[in-house]
Amino acid sequence: MSGDERPRRLTLGALVHGSGGHIAGWRHPLARPDGQLDLDHHIRVARTLERGAFDALFLADVVAIWGHDLDSLRRTARAEHFEPLTLLAALSTVTERIGLVATATTTYNEPYHVARRFASLDHLSAGRAGWNIVTSVVPLEAGNFGRDTHLDHTLRYRRADEFVDVVRALWDSFADGAVVRDKAAGSYYDPAGLRTPHHEGEHFRVRGPLNISRPPQGHPVLFQAGSSQTGRDFAARHGEVVFTAQTSLAGAQGFYRDVKARAAAHGRGPDDVLVWPVLAPYVASSEAAARARLEELQDLIHDDVARRLVQDNIGDLDLSGVPLDGPLPAIGVTNRSRSRQQLMLDLARRENLTIRQLALRFAAVSSVVGTPESVADHLETWFRGRAADGFNVSFPYLPGSAEDFVDQVIPELRRRGLVRHEYEETTLRGHLGLRRPSGRPAGPSRPCAAEVAGR
Amino acid sequence: MSGDERPRRLTLGALVHGSGGHIAGWRHPLARPDGQLDLDHHIRVARTLERGAFDALFLADVVAIWGHDLDSLRRTARAEHFEPLTLLAALSTVTERIGLVATATTTYNEPYHVARRFASLDHLSAGRAGWNIVTSVVPLEAGNFGRDTHLDHTLRYRRADEFVDVVRALWDSFADGAVVRDKAAGSYYDPAGLRTPHHEGEHFRVRGPLNISRPPQGHPVLFQAGSSQTGRDFAARHGEVVFTAQTSLAGAQGFYRDVKARAAAHGRGPDDVLVWPVLAPYVASSEAAARARLEELQDLIHDDVARRLVQDNIGDLDLSGVPLDGPLPAIGVTNRSRSRQQLMLDLARRENLTIRQLALRFAAVSSVVGTPESVADHLETWFRGRAADGFNVSFPYLPGSAEDFVDQVIPELRRRGLVRHEYEETTLRGHLGLRRPSGRPAGPSRPCAAEVAGR
Ligand SMILES: Cc1cc2nc3c(=O)[nH]c(=O)nc-3n(C[C@H](O)[C@H](O)[C@H](O)COP(=O)(O)O)c2cc1C
Ligand SMILES: Cc1cc2nc3c(=O)[nH]c(=O)nc-3n(C[C@H](O)[C@H](O)[C@H](O)COP(=O)(O)O)c2cc1C
Repeated sequence: MSGDERPRRLTLGALVHGSGGHIAGWRHPLARPDGQLDLDHHIRVARTLERGAFDALFLADVVAIWGHDLDSLRRTARAEHFEPLTLLAALSTVTERIGLVATATTTYNEPYHVARRFASLDHLSAGRAGWNIVTSVVPLEAGNFGRDTHLDHTLRYRRADEFVDVVRALWDSFADGAVVRDKAAGSYYDPAGLRTPHHEGEHFRVRGPLNISRPPQGHPVLFQAGSSQTGRDFAARHGEVVFTAQTSLAGAQGFYRDVKARAAAHGRGPDDVLVWPVLAPYVASSEAAARARLEELQDLIHDDVARRLVQDNIGDLDLSGVPLDGPLPAIGVTNRSRSRQQLMLDLARRENLTIRQLALRFAAVSSVVGTPESVADHLETWFRGRAADGFNVSFPYLPGSAEDFVDQVIPELRRRGLVRHEYEETTLRGHLGLRRPSGRPAGPSRPCAAEVAGR
Repeated sequence: MSGDERPRRLTLGALVHGSGGHIAGWRHPLARPDGQLDLDHHIRVARTLERGAFDALFLADVVAIWGHDLDSLRRTARAEHFEPLTLLAALSTVTERIGLVATATTTYNEPYHVARRFASLDHLSAGRAGWNIVTSVVPLEAGNFGRDTHLDHTLRYRRADEFVDVVRALWDSFADGAVVRDKAAGSYYDPAGLRTPHHEGEHFRVRGPLNISRPPQGHPVLFQAGSSQTGRDFAARHGEVVFTAQTSLAGAQGFYRDVKARAAAHGRGPDDVLVWPVLAPYVASSEAAARARLEELQDLIHDDVARRLVQDNIGDLDLSGVPLDGPLPAIGVTNRSRSRQQLMLDLARRENLTIRQLALRFAAVSSVVGTPESVADHLETWFRGRAADGFNVSFPYLPGSAEDFVDQVIPELRRRGLVRHEYEETTLRGHLGLRRPSGRPAGPSRPCAAEVAGR
């Protein structure tokens, strides 16, 4: 351990994807095939995670069907999912402490809508909301919002930057304590505490104020998963938790150092930005049994799905005619998620993989397979080795693998003193040890009329 | 009663506005001043309504602070409210049967977002979702979405028309039964049941499909409150429940006839469109005690609020210098909500009211004041007199006036056989006796590639 003032604690998020995060997870004998849209199923999973004192439950999202093509989609549960904030609002009433984090894209949304929905969730859940900021990667999203293709990668992040600034300003519309609700005086809020944003920028003109008082957390916690240079810099500026997909300890350590250094360059401390690699656990009482769990799912990947898994993630290439058990044809790098594309290409070349082998690798890319002890070893090594502050645990099939993890791995992590035995705080910021933003200063006071008049 | 095949049943919605619908409701001695953002408060109200077997709980919405000016807003609870779909999703888990209806504007939204959020709520609540379609009236909304003013009234409704068509097509993306979730075959959905909208219109280009299977109700129930000619025609085309603010039996009967006739012109039957006037009940064991309830709230209207109530609802006029106890200055009609403006002007001229008197009238415009029997008489007269199929009951202060209504008026309505004694169906469509839309026909089958490929 380094010379930190307080001991680091390993933090944990759960990436919950309906019937499971593995591409064939919904076909697992113990998975719920209808898990995508079953509320009781999600309640059960959320309560299991709370039993394990997980810091956060995370719902990923794209505003389209999650893929590119009928042949693959019709064979995966990615064809449908709940709008994530709707589901999280429902889960807020049946959970007590766990953080509730959802993705919302800055490319196909308006800041006013996003600000109020996360503020509403934060009020509903008494300070447990988090926003995973994405700029959209799945090409089908563009077509649902009047565009043929996404904005250019750099432009998407420029828009995202301004978007986040506007959302923050909207959250600060009412200073803490400004909403007094004084019945006797007939004063609902104190006008001196109103900070109307009056934002006019390159992408947005948003007057405000937001129509809801400041969220309990000040700002809901900001999550991000940039991995390109632009994306990492964005994460270092705004992200408080940074998700990342990493395939090796050394790679993860490099990413970790890079994010913390970039954050420092923006005047932020190392504890202001937590790095959470993705981890997909396959746990059983022996290594062999754990490996069999993974293989069981891998065997359920249909040929169509294997082909499209490679094709869709690399993008701009058509594998229809290409044999699954042959090598990948040559391609160039495009406008889409560059890092993931690069990841796949590097992997295939390094190990001379066939398309099918690449698909299987990809389906298992963040897997950690083993006994409760060896899985805990993995977490501990990455955590102590400064490759991770915590993990975004993606459960391959649900509810089974969440229950396995909570019943078997969590007790082991507790024994080692890596995670706490129960919740000690009530808000997501509290769980993660993140500071509550103070809100914008009052600035020169303006006459009331200038603040909200003029239509 | 007329010669209908099945007996008409009076249907009831509840307009729930945090601490109360009366402008000074939040100041009532028994109201919760923090009712706007208190989840437990909303749960209590929702359960009270369910005890009364209300058909629907409705949350109105504007995407701005609900007014125009600091001086009035800082004295009302309209400064803040939950984003309504977020709150309804939370309430879906703590209620069993009541319909859950929220406003969403077509002027500052994208059809894809709206379609999936209401579809998600419909799935979450097992068929209880409803959408109140509005085109936006509060001028401050424009400034939160990059505009100086709203679109022109006619253009707003043109956009709304296309918006609703797109949303319906998105809801029909998967035919009923198309999502088979067949684990063994590895088939999540049947491609023959996919209806990708491929919409290209004047205002929207939306490819689809929606990323969620068809809502349990087929389409969530469509609510609307058009009252201009354009608005009524829109309601007659799309609305299944039409809200309206009416001040006299004769006026309400005229509106009722007009909406049913317009619906017939669009090939819709009289039972396909229900008319629900707004009703704000003040109930007590004597007429005098009931009147005292209203007066108690009226006395709590601050001078600033009274002035702005008139000014904001008429629009395009500045009453700052004008004495409250004098007459209204002359003005013309504008682009804003024409009908409401006209309503106020007619009322003031007809009865020669001062500004304060007009404000008090407006604050009490849909009030029905009396004993449980006399309030029930009012409902019965309007219902049997074909002025209403049901009512949108706006509770002046909460939870008090909802409890009074459920404990005192509902039993009286039940005694008279006007409302049912308990829920008989599970979905909102079921409660209201509305048909479930069958969904778009298959049409000529297209090759899979043409359906979802191409980026
Ligand atoms: C754990 C994790 C979760 C992610 N969740 C989403 C998501 O919900 N929606 C989305 O569009 N992208 C998601 N992404 C993609 C990232 O937001 C980002 O676009 C991607 O890592 C590529 O990085 P870049 O944007 O810097 O090119 C996720 C990435 C990771 C590693
Ligand atoms: C009971 C009722 C509820 C309404 N709820 C909303 C609402 O939540 N948000 C909104 O912007 N307008 C709301 N309106 C306004 C109507 O949508 C409509 O704009 C108004 O009646 C004027 O009619 P017009 O659009 O035909 O001019 C409501 C009206 C009534 C009568």
